[in-house]
Amino acid sequence: MIELANATWTEVGDFLASGTRVAVLPFGALEQHGPHLPLSTDTLQADAVARRLAESLDAALLPPVAYGNTWSNDALPGTVSIGADTVTALCADIAASLDRAGYALLVEVNGDFGNRLPLQRAAERAAATGQRMPVVVLDYPGLVEIADAVKESPWAAPGLCHADELETSMVLAVAPALVHPDRYSAAYPQLPADFGLRQMPLAPLSPSGVFGDPRPATAEKGEQILAHVAAESERVVRRVLAGLDTA
Amino acid sequence: MIELANATWTEVGDFLASGTRVAVLPFGALEQHGPHLPLSTDTLQADAVARRLAESLDAALLPPVAYGNTWSNDALPGTVSIGADTVTALCADIAASLDRAGYALLVEVNGDFGNRLPLQRAAERAAATGQRMPVVVLDYPGLVEIADAVKESPWAAPGLCHADELETSMVLAVAPALVHPDRYSAAYPQLPADFGLRQMPLAPLSPSGVFGDPRPATAEKGEQILAHVAAESERVVRRVLAGLDTA
Amino acid sequence: MIELANATWTEVGDFLASGTRVAVLPFGALEQHGPHLPLSTDTLQADAVARRLAESLDAALLPPVAYGNTWSNDALPGTVSIGADTVTALCADIAASLDRAGYALLVEVNGDFGNRLPLQRAAERAAATGQRMPVVVLDYPGLVEIADAVKESPWAAPGLCHADELETSMVLAVAPALVHPDRYSAAYPQLPADFGLRQMPLAPLSPSGVFGDPRPATAEKGEQILAHVAAESERVVRRVLAGLDTA
Amino acid sequence: MIELANATWTEVGDFLASGTRVAVLPFGALEQHGPHLPLSTDTLQADAVARRLAESLDAALLPPVAYGNTWSNDALPGTVSIGADTVTALCADIAASLDRAGYALLVEVNGDFGNRLPLQRAAERAAATGQRMPVVVLDYPGLVEIADAVKESPWAAPGLCHADELETSMVLAVAPALVHPDRYSAAYPQLPADFGLRQMPLAPLSPSGVFGDPRPATAEKGEQILAHVAAESERVVRRVLAGLDTA
Amino acid sequence: MIELANATWTEVGDFLASGTRVAVLPFGALEQHGPHLPLSTDTLQADAVARRLAESLDAALLPPVAYGNTWSNDALPGTVSIGADTVTALCADIAASLDRAGYALLVEVNGDFGNRLPLQRAAERAAATGQRMPVVVLDYPGLVEIADAVKESPWAAPGLCHADELETSMVLAVAPALVHPDRYSAAYPQLPADFGLRQMPLAPLSPSGVFGDPRPATAEKGEQILAHVAAESERVVRRVLAGLDTA
Amino acid sequence: MIELANATWTEVGDFLASGTRVAVLPFGALEQHGPHLPLSTDTLQADAVARRLAESLDAALLPPVAYGNTWSNDALPGTVSIGADTVTALCADIAASLDRAGYALLVEVNGDFGNRLPLQRAAERAAATGQRMPVVVLDYPGLVEIADAVKESPWAAPGLCHADELETSMVLAVAPALVHPDRYSAAYPQLPADFGLRQMPLAPLSPSGVFGDPRPATAEKGEQILAHVAAESERVVRRVLAGLDTA
Repeated sequence: MIELANATWTEVGDFLASGTRVAVLPFGALEQHGPHLPLSTDTLQADAVARRLAESLDAALLPPVAYGNTWSNDALPGTVSIGADTVTALCADIAASLDRAGYALLVEVNGDFGNRLPLQRAAERAAATGQRMPVVVLDYPGLVEIADAVKESPWAAPGLCHADELETSMVLAVAPALVHPDRYSAAYPQLPADFGLRQMPLAPLSPSGVFGDPRPATAEKGEQILAHVAAESERVVRRVLAGLDTA
Repeated sequence: MIELANATWTEVGDFLASGTRVAVLPFGALEQHGPHLPLSTDTLQADAVARRLAESLDAALLPPVAYGNTWSNDALPGTVSIGADTVTALCADIAASLDRAGYALLVEVNGDFGNRLPLQRAAERAAATGQRMPVVVLDYPGLVEIADAVKESPWAAPGLCHADELETSMVLAVAPALVHPDRYSAAYPQLPADFGLRQMPLAPLSPSGVFGDPRPATAEKGEQILAHVAAESERVVRRVLAGLDTA
Repeated sequence: MIELANATWTEVGDFLASGTRVAVLPFGALEQHGPHLPLSTDTLQADAVARRLAESLDAALLPPVAYGNTWSNDALPGTVSIGADTVTALCADIAASLDRAGYALLVEVNGDFGNRLPLQRAAERAAATGQRMPVVVLDYPGLVEIADAVKESPWAAPGLCHADELETSMVLAVAPALVHPDRYSAAYPQLPADFGLRQMPLAPLSPSGVFGDPRPATAEKGEQILAHVAAESERVVRRVLAGLDTA
Repeated sequence: MIELANATWTEVGDFLASGTRVAVLPFGALEQHGPHLPLSTDTLQADAVARRLAESLDAALLPPVAYGNTWSNDALPGTVSIGADTVTALCADIAASLDRAGYALLVEVNGDFGNRLPLQRAAERAAATGQRMPVVVLDYPGLVEIADAVKESPWAAPGLCHADELETSMVLAVAPALVHPDRYSAAYPQLPADFGLRQMPLAPLSPSGVFGDPRPATAEKGEQILAHVAAESERVVRRVLAGLDTA
Repeated sequence: MIELANATWTEVGDFLASGTRVAVLPFGALEQHGPHLPLSTDTLQADAVARRLAESLDAALLPPVAYGNTWSNDALPGTVSIGADTVTALCADIAASLDRAGYALLVEVNGDFGNRLPLQRAAERAAATGQRMPVVVLDYPGLVEIADAVKESPWAAPGLCHADELETSMVLAVAPALVHPDRYSAAYPQLPADFGLRQMPLAPLSPSGVFGDPRPATAEKGEQILAHVAAESERVVRRVLAGLDTA
Repeated sequence: MIELANATWTEVGDFLASGTRVAVLPFGALEQHGPHLPLSTDTLQADAVARRLAESLDAALLPPVAYGNTWSNDALPGTVSIGADTVTALCADIAASLDRAGYALLVEVNGDFGNRLPLQRAAERAAATGQRMPVVVLDYPGLVEIADAVKESPWAAPGLCHADELETSMVLAVAPALVHPDRYSAAYPQLPADFGLRQMPLAPLSPSGVFGDPRPATAEKGEQILAHVAAESERVVRRVLAGLDTA
């Protein structure tokens, strides 16, 4: 594994000459996560998964993008959102630069729901315009599976976790000093009948910004979740690499 | 000072209610800096200046942008460049989000030459379209002044420093573990007659990527440089704040 | 139900004054579907579902869009593809026009895989920019469920159906004269290990353009599939309408 | 003639190998046409001309585009307008796809005034960027000529016909069931002194949306008009094809 | 009449307070016009018509735009072409600035064929987006009429005049020192069968760049042409102004 | 020197075959310059410098662009501003056209502060996208130097001159008939504390639009200034040409 932020260009030259030529990019956000989690929660989680993944693949780890498309939480202080087209452009530019440099694959580890479409858009555009190096976007594969295994509190909605037991556990695992257990409080907002069926602002639905219950969170659970998601991510990437080999 | 990456939304709410409502954004790059400095050199330096500035102003420190418009170094491995329009969009989106949230001023601490025009473009667009919150772009005010005071090695060209005594000193001050003194070597490339008069690729001019001499670098000099640039930055920002108060 | 292509403006005026003010837009494609199905297969299917849905909702049925983002089949004659950004623009423009006219909801019935991201992008942009009327994109809800119930031939890959038993059955149900049973032939191409994990051209994978087995297709199965997907679509839309009522 | 919507890709392959390789695209609109004509009037007319033209040329007939740039009628219910840039993009994308597939010429049969500039723009852009396959835009050549021969009612303004004797006759010829003779009423609005000299909204000028007198309309006249316009269109296209042969 | 290039802002203030608030913009090109006419021919002609028009209307004359969309003559030295979208943007920006300043009407006097669509596009966009001040584009109204009256040489093609008797006469009338009678030579190129039916490069068709016969040109004819076109332009503008008064 | 507006294409052909193949483009503005100077002041000055420069270099002089990005003076009558992106597009299009025609260098002589960033943006984009011909932007090199030598009145702010002694002298040198000495009046507005540190509208700061004192202006000073700036410009360009020769 090579961590690009800390490496010199000569070390990258060696890595590209002999290594896997896979790059991993954690894409996060600066977004409200309740009164007890830091604004960088999504970035911390994506970086933690990406780091584990880069280690298991012996890949190049890119520095995380700390901003995402989080307009749905724009109403609460602290959220700093960038537009969907900017997310797409950022991802597309980084991918094009890696492609010119000879990388074999870019894996995006996405940490925020609002980045899904824009990152997929960049991946599709690269493929449709014939870019040699493919881009794969991962949205925490295996998360629901491991969540169902370790979670003690109920979901706020199927698949919806925001500042809840899961996210709090992951931040406890990677940056415990940034968690405020004294401010834990559960919130199970009444969701509109069509929640999840159309795009809507989240902030008005929960005054605290919490969707779920952070109280049963532990660092151990967080580590279990991160390890499982990283392992599932590796499984996906190895299939992609196998596909590239036979292409 | 509030560091947004580590803060919760409730803490930001308090800060905005009572504080200076100034935000500071370090804008860096992932760019070759010779065989002895990390690719994140520009980001580390911008973040160090921004952090000192945010402390002296009691401002909100934004997480750094780790990618910049560095096409002129695209030829060496490790450089990952994003387009000028993407830099502009990223800065404009962050500024618009802060404007909606009620900030009074955004200060960009720019760490890479290639970001100058794109960041200025975003600042001008914000002003021309009537955005309430102004954007100020700082390109290390006072740098040449303090450099002339502490520098022992000659400049590669007037005002040109890349992986040289100055940059190496600054990284020694903030991230000494990432510096490789055993790989120090000076380079004073023959520059074209029109160097600095038009845009041109830098990489072909210096095989090592160095422009200057890193050997006299020390952490003490780095600290002096950072402290002076931060102090000059503060002076500029205080003048802008005074201008806003009388507006 | 009002079919806009056939209605006069005065009839639409009456509909908007008294009716549900829901509009349904079938979004298709002009794409190769093997030697036995017409290029308009996706459009015919989307229109059939949209028509049933509009009837059950008493909604306004828009004329279908006959072109989609089908670059992955561009290599075979007959496919006429439009860009992803054009799909987004078309959907966004139609939505904006309906919003100005006072509609309460636009439901997109999407008939082609390549339109998914671009249509979702339009729906998200409308929400993020504060458009009053929401846009919901449906990708044949319930299709896999009913397919598992009626299908006799195996899937070419989980969830992958192209010119197979399912699609042939649906066209037999709505436009039997356009189906050529004498040209039926099954194809179960060897798919790359990473099929479905990244965007890739489909045409090179199957010389006939078929993925699956059209031979067990019947109009009865087609009618069952369309009825089930339309019923599931109605269920989704009614939840969205309920959410709007309480908003 | 091959009708692409109904054809299979193998049939298109044969057509391209042996045929004229000319494609004809009817470009319509969804626009108010008085209380007696359907919103799809422009699409029906363009499709009727395009079909006759494709038959006489043995060309490939593309499925019609049912939406156009009709902002000038946006004020009346039922009009669903798309932007001028979207019309241009749609036409340019379809042309580029046909160019890649080996077509020799794309003929656009335009059915709506608001599409003129955007379609011409796409044709010019294709020529200016060196696209091999040219694009020709036809705006009903010979229409005024034949109108002067068959028309019994006066023009609302020179060359202006909207829901009048001409348009009503054409729809009577191709889709009589969609015409409501019981709602016929003439309207000769007072037009501003500068009508036709600058772009202006049409809807405020005629409360019924009619410009002219539908009462003398007959299917026979409609058939005469369509036949003449199709013949004139063929004459133009044959000259273009002759020009291509000598190029 | 006020000539903006020469006026001070205080004089413009007076003009806007009391005058017609009509602005006239000559839009030219820098384009080959044979061996005997200057590259600025289109600009000189548009400026001459615009000046006469501004005088008769007591309007504000804007400085001419000396560059146009002339890609079809790009192959000959001296032609400097700007893109169609840039022509549109330039016209739209000037119009928006005049609109903000309180002008009642912008009249574009277009001097080059390639600017037609882009200028019309700007005018339509202004109308479609609800700009208060309308934009009218004039393409030398009455030119063919007066040409038929004064011309002694035949047309190269109906309505086609480039470096011929007409254009040479107009430049003789306004800038005789820039005309080289010793280089006059006629050229009646064989035109493709589809000339005028689709966009095509002009330069390959005539080695000298001339289409017609400059030899019978005289300054008197030039003056007659300019006077007639200016008078017809005035007639059109007065109708537009009458329409505005009644709006 | 060849003045393109007045030259024929055959003369340009000869020039490109034998000459320096350097082009000089004066980029001005239509902007308020106090009650005593014409709106075209910036264009006149840029054209005067460009003309002298083209003469000394034996270069091709392009016709001036008479419009610039002057939103900061938009509030006073007479200013007609175009957007920054339009300035960039105009410059980029002209550069691309000259590049295709075989020119060796484009020198932009910029006459307005607001054009700086947009012109630099075009130059950088050309370099970043690999355009063969470089673009150099000159912002009156040597102006402050010569100003300090000839100026009798104080600066309104360091480097700020608008309708003052300097500009008035230059217009007296090139277009004395357009200067109104009877309206001379000095203005030394109180500037905000952060003047020059961020983009801000200028018009509200000076009711007359003057920043400085026009009264000591003379044509002789104007001629001295223009000659010095042109000579400094030549020095810069010759260094660029030398750099190109060794490239």
